Amino acid sequence: MFKLLKTQGSARRGEFETVHGTFQTPAFMNVATCGAIKGALSAFDLKEIGCQVMLSNTYHLHVRPGDDVVYDMGGLHKFTRWDGPILTDSGGFQVFSLAQLRKIKEEGVSFNSHVDGRKIFMGPEESMRIQSHLGSTIAMAFDECVENPAEYSYAKESCARTERWLERCKAEMKRLNSLPETINKNQLLFGINQGATYDDLRSDNMKRIAEMELDGYAIGGLAVGEPKEVMYHIISVVEPFAPKDKIRYLMGVGTPGNIIEAVSRGVDLFDCVMPSRNARHGHLFTNGGIINLNNKKYERDESPIDPSCGCPTCRNFSRSYIRHLFKCGEMLAMRLCVIHNLYFYNNLLRRVRDSIDNGTFDEFRRENTEKLDTRI
Amino acid sequence: MFKLLKTQGSARRGEFETVHGTFQTPAFMNVATCGAIKGALSAFDLKEIGCQVMLSNTYHLHVRPGDDVVYDMGGLHKFTRWDGPILTDSGGFQVFSLAQLRKIKEEGVSFNSHVDGRKIFMGPEESMRIQSHLGSTIAMAFDECVENPAEYSYAKESCARTERWLERCKAEMKRLNSLPETINKNQLLFGINQGATYDDLRSDNMKRIAEMELDGYAIGGLAVGEPKEVMYHIISVVEPFAPKDKIRYLMGVGTPGNIIEAVSRGVDLFDCVMPSRNARHGHLFTNGGIINLNNKKYERDESPIDPSCGCPTCRNFSRSYIRHLFKCGEMLAMRLCVIHNLYFYNNLLRRVRDSIDNGTFDEFRRENTEKLDTRI
Repeated sequence: MFKLLKTQGSARRGEFETVHGTFQTPAFMNVATCGAIKGALSAFDLKEIGCQVMLSNTYHLHVRPGDDVVYDMGGLHKFTRWDGPILTDSGGFQVFSLAQLRKIKEEGVSFNSHVDGRKIFMGPEESMRIQSHLGSTIAMAFDECVENPAEYSYAKESCARTERWLERCKAEMKRLNSLPETINKNQLLFGINQGATYDDLRSDNMKRIAEMELDGYAIGGLAVGEPKEVMYHIISVVEPFAPKDKIRYLMGVGTPGNIIEAVSRGVDLFDCVMPSRNARHGHLFTNGGIINLNNKKYERDESPIDPSCGCPTCRNFSRSYIRHLFKCGEMLAMRLCVIHNLYFYNNLLRRVRDSIDNGTFDEFRRENTEKLDTRI
Repeated sequence: MFKLLKTQGSARRGEFETVHGTFQTPAFMNVATCGAIKGALSAFDLKEIGCQVMLSNTYHLHVRPGDDVVYDMGGLHKFTRWDGPILTDSGGFQVFSLAQLRKIKEEGVSFNSHVDGRKIFMGPEESMRIQSHLGSTIAMAFDECVENPAEYSYAKESCARTERWLERCKAEMKRLNSLPETINKNQLLFGINQGATYDDLRSDNMKRIAEMELDGYAIGGLAVGEPKEVMYHIISVVEPFAPKDKIRYLMGVGTPGNIIEAVSRGVDLFDCVMPSRNARHGHLFTNGGIINLNNKKYERDESPIDPSCGCPTCRNFSRSYIRHLFKCGEMLAMRLCVIHNLYFYNNLLRRVRDSIDNGTFDEFRRENTEKLDTRI
């Protein structure tokens, strides 16, 4: 399924084949939490902005509308009308970050819904069943995401439990994929590396999950409070133990600079809410750096957000117009800016791929890592 | 500019030629208050949903971003990227409905901005200058919109003042259209019939403004509190005195049934925020009647909002999906529903035009006036 096409240093150029189509890596996944990109973008808009993979959140869809509803509607693809690959997270991260009054046991986690306080139990089997109901292309294993900094003893204990959960995820997915009523009988399973910021826990964990021959390997529990140097270090620690012939996914990361640096350390796949969230506040990525469109200096600025950008927003609208829409609280401001920022991210990864193809990734990295993350 | 093509009873089929293109009447104008349709629709979306004419609000654009900013950006067409006809209202309605602490004198109205309380003065000349700055296709005369019910003596006095203001509007527009720096030197002026719910005031006023040879005639001050029968009656009272060879515009009206009834009484042009506002709350017009998408019964409904509708929303998305988006507070819900409701309105007017062309308007009216306004 994953084919490694070319490397430059640790940076990898590959492709990932699925029943819902093949995507080129390194790739950025566009986050549609509840089955829609925040900022009024539909599945058809995703096509326009170069999205290859959509990501949806298992926890959110379980709470609303309920995975049974999505299943009855034929699964996420039919429900949202996105026909490309979809990755669903396991719900683990949201259970640990959003839900209230959670209790962790060996079986799984009890918690109260953030929407209506309703009691919910989720363990490895429940997570797999929900993701099977959703019919996503790729399911993520149910894990505990420990906040950084974490106690060594707790991180170790949590890591061991997450490994046992992974075994149960694998067994349950195998069972679900063999059922006649399952929407996507080829659903793939990615394991998640944990171990907080401890080198030995991280590498031991990666070695053990690598033996399980999963469809892909994620690095979880980063970008949750630690400095970026620590994040880069952990990637470099676990990378040698991640199977070369499997896709590697760095969860929830990050800025354009973070992504370029992670690619240079051997990561293939990314997701982050930052481009869409920042866009909704008028903070926009450009090839010259980050701009804040609320700034008075853009009041009469007839140029597009990024003159070098080919997105539908930059092809048509001025900074002046979009700034005005923000000042009036018009939703169109958010839509136009989310379109731009996501196009920027998808295009950034396209440029990363081109540079690996051309053997110019090192130059690309030198030129862009700092610049793209700088506020101008 | 207005060409009457065909009639059936009092219903009229025509076309209106402007420097920004020709539109077919009866027509519905889509309201982009601040230069964007609420619900995250851009000028390009308007093309998709059959919009012929965009309407923007002079008062709102004067307050934000300021008509001087729009002028500096090349006018509303360049600013919003809508290249078809644009009608701007005069600001009068908003001054009388939104602004605070207003004082009316012969020169005009002093009031405080609803955004920041800033003191503003607007009279006929100011309204014309702002609309000239905006560069709209059609400017509306500055009038006082009296709430119903109104005292006879006040309505009469107000009506006389609005007539004097109309003379000043005409003179000021003539002057502005002759200036070299004016964006649209062919800006058109529509007068507005007032007179509250008094037959004699209404008809006397229409007779007098008809003599002024304006580019079109609006009926204002309706749908502001009076029963619909009163509105229909007033239209029938003034219609005989409105020039046959000029377009007639019923301001701020209304439901599908209201529009069909007004067409049957000789009206050519409409605008209303109802379709977009109702859409944002999940209240949707269909050819079978009005549905509320928040209703639990649509939770697993795979059919589109209106199975007989050809809009981008109905071609692609289910009631179940859109209802879910509303429940999650996803902006996409509003966008998809505004697209549907505006398409419905633009298409309704297209069907009205077709029925006049085919001589079947009476049947169309009998079949639809009641049905389309019924909640189902």
